[in-house]
Amino acid sequence: MKLSIERSALMKALGHVQNVVERRNTIPILSNVLMSAEGDKVNMVATDLDIEMSESTEAEVGQPGQITAPAHTLYDIVRKLSDGAQVVLQINSDDRLDVDAGRAHFTLPLLPSGDFPKMTAEGFTHEFVLPAKALLRLIDKTKFAISTEETRYYLNGIYMHANAGKLRCVATDGHRLALAEAELPSGADGLPGVIIPRKTVAEIRRLIDGSDADIAVSVSEAKIRFTTGSAVLTSKLIDGTFPDYERVIPKNNPKELTIDNKVFADAVDRVSTISAEKSRSIKMGLADDNLALTVNNPESGHAREELRVDYTEEALEIGFNAKYLLDVTTQIEGRDATFFLDSPASPALVKDSEDPDALFVLMPLRV
Amino acid sequence: MKLSIERSALMKALGHVQNVVERRNTIPILSNVLMSAEGDKVNMVATDLDIEMSESTEAEVGQPGQITAPAHTLYDIVRKLSDGAQVVLQINSDDRLDVDAGRAHFTLPLLPSGDFPKMTAEGFTHEFVLPAKALLRLIDKTKFAISTEETRYYLNGIYMHANAGKLRCVATDGHRLALAEAELPSGADGLPGVIIPRKTVAEIRRLIDGSDADIAVSVSEAKIRFTTGSAVLTSKLIDGTFPDYERVIPKNNPKELTIDNKVFADAVDRVSTISAEKSRSIKMGLADDNLALTVNNPESGHAREELRVDYTEEALEIGFNAKYLLDVTTQIEGRDATFFLDSPASPALVKDSEDPDALFVLMPLRV
Repeated sequence: MKLSIERSALMKALGHVQNVVERRNTIPILSNVLMSAEGDKVNMVATDLDIEMSESTEAEVGQPGQITAPAHTLYDIVRKLSDGAQVVLQINSDDRLDVDAGRAHFTLPLLPSGDFPKMTAEGFTHEFVLPAKALLRLIDKTKFAISTEETRYYLNGIYMHANAGKLRCVATDGHRLALAEAELPSGADGLPGVIIPRKTVAEIRRLIDGSDADIAVSVSEAKIRFTTGSAVLTSKLIDGTFPDYERVIPKNNPKELTIDNKVFADAVDRVSTISAEKSRSIKMGLADDNLALTVNNPESGHAREELRVDYTEEALEIGFNAKYLLDVTTQIEGRDATFFLDSPASPALVKDSEDPDALFVLMPLRV
Repeated sequence: MKLSIERSALMKALGHVQNVVERRNTIPILSNVLMSAEGDKVNMVATDLDIEMSESTEAEVGQPGQITAPAHTLYDIVRKLSDGAQVVLQINSDDRLDVDAGRAHFTLPLLPSGDFPKMTAEGFTHEFVLPAKALLRLIDKTKFAISTEETRYYLNGIYMHANAGKLRCVATDGHRLALAEAELPSGADGLPGVIIPRKTVAEIRRLIDGSDADIAVSVSEAKIRFTTGSAVLTSKLIDGTFPDYERVIPKNNPKELTIDNKVFADAVDRVSTISAEKSRSIKMGLADDNLALTVNNPESGHAREELRVDYTEEALEIGFNAKYLLDVTTQIEGRDATFFLDSPASPALVKDSEDPDALFVLMPLRV
């Protein structure tokens, strides 16, 4: 293999794929990127056996061929080259990779490209296209609620499925739940529920952030694939059953509280300064258009702040984890957040005044 | 005690002192800030028993008095208040501190102000004044070479003393040495060598960064004090003997190498990409106005880059720790760095083409 490529093109493509590579690998070839040069393109692939990321970019191919080279080292070298440099990659007579750019010369060890694990991806049953911004929104409105408890592996991702003419994403860790919907794209009809793992969510987010492109999504029973431009991310799905989350979403909470989201977030942040590190518990006391936020912590003292709100129902005191409240406020884009409450022991439903296609559920804390 | 103070004034003063407070304290009162209100001022003091930082700021004092309150908690509260808020602090009937700002109310536990440790500071033998920028330069040119090995406690700081009409600062970890000088200020004549601890160096740097003020420095046998505006930092000195560093500085290295500092730094950074994590070893091969930087790492490969330099002495190969080379290049402000070299086993002297008042010594590595 021999090819010549402009530094910024190589950096962009390598940058996309190398992030999938774990820092420590017990299987050496997983530290490598597979590069295949043919025609006027070079294709790069990296994998951690659960996610495979590939990207093609234009290159002057002097001699077609395949190699696998250390992904992070190669990326670090390319990153440190000066902008505009032309990079020549070729196998030398010792079967190692020569990397030449200007007066800089590197030789890197290779591993047999035949040993590079290839992720099979067949039997996609649903294929549809989403604007990057729509996919980004579905991810951002829900990913904060993904569970980090490894024993509840079936909650370690975003659950995506078709529901009543919408494409719906849901995440929950048992303490809070986030749900966002987008118009159901053509081809996603009857999409069964699939659980997209946390790392895949982070990788696809990184790939499409700031993009105006369309993202093609293909789903099979065990895999999901995202394609944008020349980049392709294929990932295993989580093999588990997502819980019946609909049961958790309150349908008839009678007590409605409307509140300026920014004012609320700032007050919760202030009052929670003295909440205990672990529970982060904060109490909301509601009565007559008044919200009193209070924290009592035997060790660090007492805090209270009152806000004017829209609340005309019967008085209620209910506790929440302040961090979870703040996570929800960061996802509210409208001026107001609306809480639908019931008893101190019932979950609360929170909606964005300007986004009917997202909702959040918070389990109360005993305060 | 009762006082009223504008949020930004309180935040600035508390911000300066609270940083001295360690996150975890076995002695509870060390988590607190001592506040003393009198006249039209409030004075705040924090200490870790090695460093004491105090600052005064104007306040409307309703009732003079002293309290000690949790420093980080109080700072976090004040930081989260809205800009322009007026903050009222007062002891309540339960002997706790009420903090009121707008509709927010906090109550914090207090500890007896009589128990707050006061750092004695007497017998200052030398007092002088330095512009903040001059002090900042002395710190920045040397602090990177401070040792982090706790067993060599006498190297865990910057050694400052008067030398031949200059105020000189030196730091070394045994692998490299940095020295910077400034005009000797009036009052610093005969200043004996004192070792300023690393944390004190960081605190004074934080306090004066970006300042155009003059800094008053007072030195006794065991303490040093920095005063700027209404802020006073008093610190214990390291009680130890700084080694005879002059012996380490090469006086007659005959081989002179002049090199564009930026070009050199970029090349060292690139080539060292594949150097071993631990030794970070890089070889400089010099001959006939040519510098070849090479790294050989059995695991990750080989790197080489050549640079045009000014070097007309006999050929030389000498190895260094790439990280230490890069640390020095970040302190060179002129276009060129000049290396004075001797044998592969002799320390190298590095000077800044535009700063005769700083020098750096690097011990070679066997390569």
